[in-house]
Amino acid sequence: MSYFSNVNEIAYEGKSSTNPLAFKYYNAQEMVGGKTMEEHLRFAVAYWHTFTADGTDPFGVGTAVRGWNKYSGLDLAKARVEASFEFYSKLNAPFFCFHDRDIAPEGETLQETNKNLDVIVDMIKEYMKTSGTKLLWNTANMFTNPRFTHGAGTTSNAEVYAYAAAQVKKGLEVGKELGAENYVFWGGREGYETLLNTDMEFELDNLARLYQMAIDYAKEIGFNAQFLIEPKPKEPTKHQYDFDAATTLAFLHRYGLKDHFKLNLEANHATLAGHTFEHELRVARINGVLGSLDANQGDMLLGWDTDEFPQDLYTTTLTMYEVLKNGGIGRGGVNFDAKVRRGSFEPEDLFYAHIAGMDAYAKGLKVAAKMIEDRVFENVIEERYATFKEGIGQDIVSGKATLQSLEAHALQNNPVNNKSGRLELIRSVFNQYILGDL
Amino acid sequence: MSYFSNVNEIAYEGKSSTNPLAFKYYNAQEMVGGKTMEEHLRFAVAYWHTFTADGTDPFGVGTAVRGWNKYSGLDLAKARVEASFEFYSKLNAPFFCFHDRDIAPEGETLQETNKNLDVIVDMIKEYMKTSGTKLLWNTANMFTNPRFTHGAGTTSNAEVYAYAAAQVKKGLEVGKELGAENYVFWGGREGYETLLNTDMEFELDNLARLYQMAIDYAKEIGFNAQFLIEPKPKEPTKHQYDFDAATTLAFLHRYGLKDHFKLNLEANHATLAGHTFEHELRVARINGVLGSLDANQGDMLLGWDTDEFPQDLYTTTLTMYEVLKNGGIGRGGVNFDAKVRRGSFEPEDLFYAHIAGMDAYAKGLKVAAKMIEDRVFENVIEERYATFKEGIGQDIVSGKATLQSLEAHALQNNPVNNKSGRLELIRSVFNQYILGDL
Amino acid sequence: MSYFSNVNEIAYEGKSSTNPLAFKYYNAQEMVGGKTMEEHLRFAVAYWHTFTADGTDPFGVGTAVRGWNKYSGLDLAKARVEASFEFYSKLNAPFFCFHDRDIAPEGETLQETNKNLDVIVDMIKEYMKTSGTKLLWNTANMFTNPRFTHGAGTTSNAEVYAYAAAQVKKGLEVGKELGAENYVFWGGREGYETLLNTDMEFELDNLARLYQMAIDYAKEIGFNAQFLIEPKPKEPTKHQYDFDAATTLAFLHRYGLKDHFKLNLEANHATLAGHTFEHELRVARINGVLGSLDANQGDMLLGWDTDEFPQDLYTTTLTMYEVLKNGGIGRGGVNFDAKVRRGSFEPEDLFYAHIAGMDAYAKGLKVAAKMIEDRVFENVIEERYATFKEGIGQDIVSGKATLQSLEAHALQNNPVNNKSGRLELIRSVFNQYILGDL
Amino acid sequence: MSYFSNVNEIAYEGKSSTNPLAFKYYNAQEMVGGKTMEEHLRFAVAYWHTFTADGTDPFGVGTAVRGWNKYSGLDLAKARVEASFEFYSKLNAPFFCFHDRDIAPEGETLQETNKNLDVIVDMIKEYMKTSGTKLLWNTANMFTNPRFTHGAGTTSNAEVYAYAAAQVKKGLEVGKELGAENYVFWGGREGYETLLNTDMEFELDNLARLYQMAIDYAKEIGFNAQFLIEPKPKEPTKHQYDFDAATTLAFLHRYGLKDHFKLNLEANHATLAGHTFEHELRVARINGVLGSLDANQGDMLLGWDTDEFPQDLYTTTLTMYEVLKNGGIGRGGVNFDAKVRRGSFEPEDLFYAHIAGMDAYAKGLKVAAKMIEDRVFENVIEERYATFKEGIGQDIVSGKATLQSLEAHALQNNPVNNKSGRLELIRSVFNQYILGDL
Repeated sequence: MSYFSNVNEIAYEGKSSTNPLAFKYYNAQEMVGGKTMEEHLRFAVAYWHTFTADGTDPFGVGTAVRGWNKYSGLDLAKARVEASFEFYSKLNAPFFCFHDRDIAPEGETLQETNKNLDVIVDMIKEYMKTSGTKLLWNTANMFTNPRFTHGAGTTSNAEVYAYAAAQVKKGLEVGKELGAENYVFWGGREGYETLLNTDMEFELDNLARLYQMAIDYAKEIGFNAQFLIEPKPKEPTKHQYDFDAATTLAFLHRYGLKDHFKLNLEANHATLAGHTFEHELRVARINGVLGSLDANQGDMLLGWDTDEFPQDLYTTTLTMYEVLKNGGIGRGGVNFDAKVRRGSFEPEDLFYAHIAGMDAYAKGLKVAAKMIEDRVFENVIEERYATFKEGIGQDIVSGKATLQSLEAHALQNNPVNNKSGRLELIRSVFNQYILGDL
Repeated sequence: MSYFSNVNEIAYEGKSSTNPLAFKYYNAQEMVGGKTMEEHLRFAVAYWHTFTADGTDPFGVGTAVRGWNKYSGLDLAKARVEASFEFYSKLNAPFFCFHDRDIAPEGETLQETNKNLDVIVDMIKEYMKTSGTKLLWNTANMFTNPRFTHGAGTTSNAEVYAYAAAQVKKGLEVGKELGAENYVFWGGREGYETLLNTDMEFELDNLARLYQMAIDYAKEIGFNAQFLIEPKPKEPTKHQYDFDAATTLAFLHRYGLKDHFKLNLEANHATLAGHTFEHELRVARINGVLGSLDANQGDMLLGWDTDEFPQDLYTTTLTMYEVLKNGGIGRGGVNFDAKVRRGSFEPEDLFYAHIAGMDAYAKGLKVAAKMIEDRVFENVIEERYATFKEGIGQDIVSGKATLQSLEAHALQNNPVNNKSGRLELIRSVFNQYILGDL
Repeated sequence: MSYFSNVNEIAYEGKSSTNPLAFKYYNAQEMVGGKTMEEHLRFAVAYWHTFTADGTDPFGVGTAVRGWNKYSGLDLAKARVEASFEFYSKLNAPFFCFHDRDIAPEGETLQETNKNLDVIVDMIKEYMKTSGTKLLWNTANMFTNPRFTHGAGTTSNAEVYAYAAAQVKKGLEVGKELGAENYVFWGGREGYETLLNTDMEFELDNLARLYQMAIDYAKEIGFNAQFLIEPKPKEPTKHQYDFDAATTLAFLHRYGLKDHFKLNLEANHATLAGHTFEHELRVARINGVLGSLDANQGDMLLGWDTDEFPQDLYTTTLTMYEVLKNGGIGRGGVNFDAKVRRGSFEPEDLFYAHIAGMDAYAKGLKVAAKMIEDRVFENVIEERYATFKEGIGQDIVSGKATLQSLEAHALQNNPVNNKSGRLELIRSVFNQYILGDL
Repeated sequence: MSYFSNVNEIAYEGKSSTNPLAFKYYNAQEMVGGKTMEEHLRFAVAYWHTFTADGTDPFGVGTAVRGWNKYSGLDLAKARVEASFEFYSKLNAPFFCFHDRDIAPEGETLQETNKNLDVIVDMIKEYMKTSGTKLLWNTANMFTNPRFTHGAGTTSNAEVYAYAAAQVKKGLEVGKELGAENYVFWGGREGYETLLNTDMEFELDNLARLYQMAIDYAKEIGFNAQFLIEPKPKEPTKHQYDFDAATTLAFLHRYGLKDHFKLNLEANHATLAGHTFEHELRVARINGVLGSLDANQGDMLLGWDTDEFPQDLYTTTLTMYEVLKNGGIGRGGVNFDAKVRRGSFEPEDLFYAHIAGMDAYAKGLKVAAKMIEDRVFENVIEERYATFKEGIGQDIVSGKATLQSLEAHALQNNPVNNKSGRLELIRSVFNQYILGDL
């Protein structure tokens, strides 16, 4: 059966097309630099937002019109698998991502829960044989069930910790089974509601222990996916431990885990933490931990994770700029951790939204590639920092300088000769590149 | 001459006193735990806000009525020293803090600038001989002068970097001369206005080089002050590199500098970064880098650094709780990096404001000490995490557990038995302690 | 049967009591000024948070342990009524509040839905006969059902508008039946997701029409409750039309509705709009529309409506100050639109939380009354504005002055003589009053 | 003499020009709809940011390299006039705006201050005779001088109020003298630092009195400029009375002043108040008070007024959309209340920045006009609200409906048939229009 019978396979029709069910900028096989757009972007569909969620918000129940919602239990889970592969196929999506509880319902016991999971994993595996769509990453949902009220890896209850560990173990096995390229840790409840009842250090120690066990077990079973931690500053917790890229780096350093993890960075999480997305990407890039992207956008006037489909071309361009400067996204990808608005409840909206996001990223990729080709920012930077290429500047960079030698230099009272940062002009040029006029 | 002739020495008169020029809660020699209040709190007056600033804001010129403002140049600088020691004496303040440019004006050349500085440092040293007030810390102002537009240790101009290094060198010498207990780095311009023209990695490398040179030079001259970095997320820059405690820790780890620095944490900087002050203190404490406090408070509805005098008893109590759990503030102190409002322009307001802050901290200290004595939070935590004291919990903490052993345990499907976090009750008890009713 | 068998009636035991199930500051019959605490505060329990909700958040399902959750449908609704009156009785709560859909489930048709409602309203009415607890206000939930995705009174769909109108009609009838003192309009979906598809003016016109119809119908059926609008700036909508008190006033002015409505102000809504709660109360008070309070508190570092129980004594004191200056809260009350944290899931937490809120408000009332008695702020203000009591100041206030006469005065170049605003000192005094030391 | 000798007159060279000193999108005489771009946009240069300010920020002194800074006092003021007209001419700017204190220095007495002002006003008038540049608006700076610490029209000091009135009187006279099209009131200090010492109602009453006097005096002297109030939520005050458009409307309604004022809306003020700029414009438009624009942009991650030059094409397009739907900006204009960054300190940056802003607005105008021509949003809205064109919908709009008639309709239980809001698709189409692809 078909869940999206109104929709045909989405084709590239070019930017002036008025067909809402066509790509305007994303042309999978088009070459940009030496790679196809598809290879650059590695788009993934997020199972939870697209097939599991229904538009519920804190003040209202679900609105989504979904053909599979007439089923329940395992039948519902199976229908979602069918729908998902129809969706991937029509969208020509190369990847998907899921949490364990997105794809299969929990049972009465952990045994039963795992059995449910096995049924669906087998079904997905079967579908993957004939589908071109692969698993970018999977993860364990350790935040929805009431047992995780006080955390999973940072719970105050050892029984819950054991359960979480079991869930991670199964997640790694599932990832291996389905050939996942990455395995993600997002600590939705790994934080605190109040410091007044929280032993932060103890909780962080335990979290590090869980990560170490996961590293060990993955090695043991030969699951060589890239491990990713996804920072988020808050929501649902008042304060989440993996606040942002830098905080996560500090954690990895402290516990000697830095070589084992990269980051899965999300645009909306960045802005909730007070950063631009490109800032988070830059921090990760220069620290060698830029792993994968959760592509969405937030509303800068709202204080929660709105997970909107990414459509802001300034951000998609700067995002792809960082990715290109990183030498590509590697084993990671561009996962649409984004949901259609509660008011966009029709099945077609799922296509409109993904097309919107893919087009915005495709355009961003092309603009970024052109700007790098033209060395727009590179020339600015080369000129700005030119004084460090010779003389006292070179001494500083080479490590030859000391406070004494630098003071001696400063006492010459040479003119300073700062140059304008030219922000306004640079932004104007940026606009012209986005508009395709340079 | 006297600059505060209307004000006598401030005495402790007890909480029911209506004398606005008396301490109600701060009683320097009163014992709390095994130490005097004075030893616990180590209050410092911030030279810049109290003697240099004049109430200017981005939309208005100075309003402050200050007796020394009739002078200019070095005379003004000298008058400020006189006024400051009169103020410390009347307030009975054990410490003060300054930036180099707060105390002495810049000259035409670095030589002249340093000479000005020497004149004032000598004068301060002379005053310190007969005063009980000591230097908690000094620092270099590398943000006001136009040369630092694009940064100091992270400037794009090698000439400016050399100047900054010379300034740090002099700062270390001045600190040594005056017996400073700490030396502070606050990177007011160490950040970026836009990533579009910024080589973040290069700038951070340079900043680390400057810190290393400072460490080397301090060792060379035998200046053994504690080195402190003061995080701030933004303002004046769009994004400051030392965003918060965790970000600074990541930086210190990356560059192998962690053993050489502690943090000078500021309440208003914490909230601008999206954290409570107690969160920042906790992060620093559990990472062994809680160095000193810049005591003030922000306005949670305003997005800039308001640097108000601290008067919120919830925060002062939780701050002193973290300090006490840290075994005290060590060589650091409680520095009032706070300014009287532009509308509080009379000289007496300087006293009212400092009394307000000192009383709020004194009260916070007493409440925190009582709560620790009664093990209020400690009992909550002991009970909350009890399951980690035995059985599977003990295995987790001892490092014996693996994903396999934990899964085996979880497959027993034991009941979870989470306990309520009791936030509302705990807060009620907290209120009663603040009110002195428990 | 009993749903709270572990809890006895809550008694006043005084501030030093360590019994968590006792009032420390709220003593219903204690006189403050000329009225009892109970008369001043008119506390109400919010049915939705306390009996209907279960701790669900956007990332997790319910955690609340509630005896009535074993039932479903109308049986569940009935069990909640039983539980609620047991709760009111044990807490000695004078009032409760509800939305229509909190108390009874929707049916297949509007007829059936109304029938369900009638069953429960009858049951509540029966309970009210022997209970001292009265209905502070009721309202219509026009935000949870998917039909209200695009709004209720501001929907883009006339069919939905008609439904909303029917719901309001029934709500007014229910309010009359149960003797409600107020009727509330909170426009949870009355706003927009994006201006790109929204006719704001049309939607506001329609909202005004609905209000007018409600006024007309209430008059027709002789339901003389006070009508209240509850402002909120956002959430669930991106932008809610009743953003804050001032915005709602502008709306009421525009549509000639100002005489028919007062405001139900909520603390957390105030802060989400960028205001302190006391600001919103002041705006309402000086415009004669201070109607009732939704008492809770937000987390100033989180961008969503956390609806925490109010425990901040600074805010409860300033809230009660505004109420006392208003001559009391009139027919309104202090409704705990607050929910226990998801981690505070035990039934006892409902008591702890309400006791916490009631005690915080009781303490605030007492402090505010004492400060008014001592004319603390009043004296400050009288002195600050003294120049308007005579001479040119009097001319200004009396309306006699013109730009010409004032310029003539200014050209005399009299000294300005501003006085310090004394913020720091005033806050210190405020602290002493809260601590009971003045 | 020339202050911008490196810069020739800025010409339109088209979008692919790489000349940084050329317009790419702004072509003054190009027709859009039935008017030239120049007539639509009515650009103004803000005297304060461009000729008076010097790059000072709260942590640093001025950086701006300006040829006129070698002068002081009245000579400086005269040099600025020369520079400003050279700048207008080279930029071909049709308008400029100023505060009284931007253009001339204060003297010892009000008499002397007014004399200074007269000298400069005469000089400006002389320049205007041969220049095509006109005065869009002037205003009185009643926030910089210390006398306004506690406000001007809302001061607690009658002497200050008189001074402010004298300043407004003079401002109206100057506006008349120079043929200003508008007169602006921005209440930089009209708000409060704390409610604890503030009589809000009294202050608002006084503010209304001042407005009324200004209306009366303007009438008396025959100055028929449009009066504008400029809302801002905060900064420098903790809370400014004219918080946003709606708050200002409530004020105007309350004091019967609505017919006398329109609003001067600023983009960065909108976002500081929690609104998009287009929201504020819409509120003003549907209330008939859209008067003029202060065109800039804020940084959504910073909490203060950054006053950046507007370059975000999404916002400039939606801004011009509202203006076009308003039937144009009338006597108002697009004033660049924007400043070059502190790091963009060279004189050329003033041109780059204005070109950037003018191009961004020109592009926005063209996109908005095309979207209106194609009825992009209009068609969406027509379809969305179609149900109000007939049947029960028509009854609602015509005022025929009552709660009873609507309930009767709802009891028919017709299917609801909401339609998707299609946000994601609409945004995609919006992107295509911006990119010029539709």
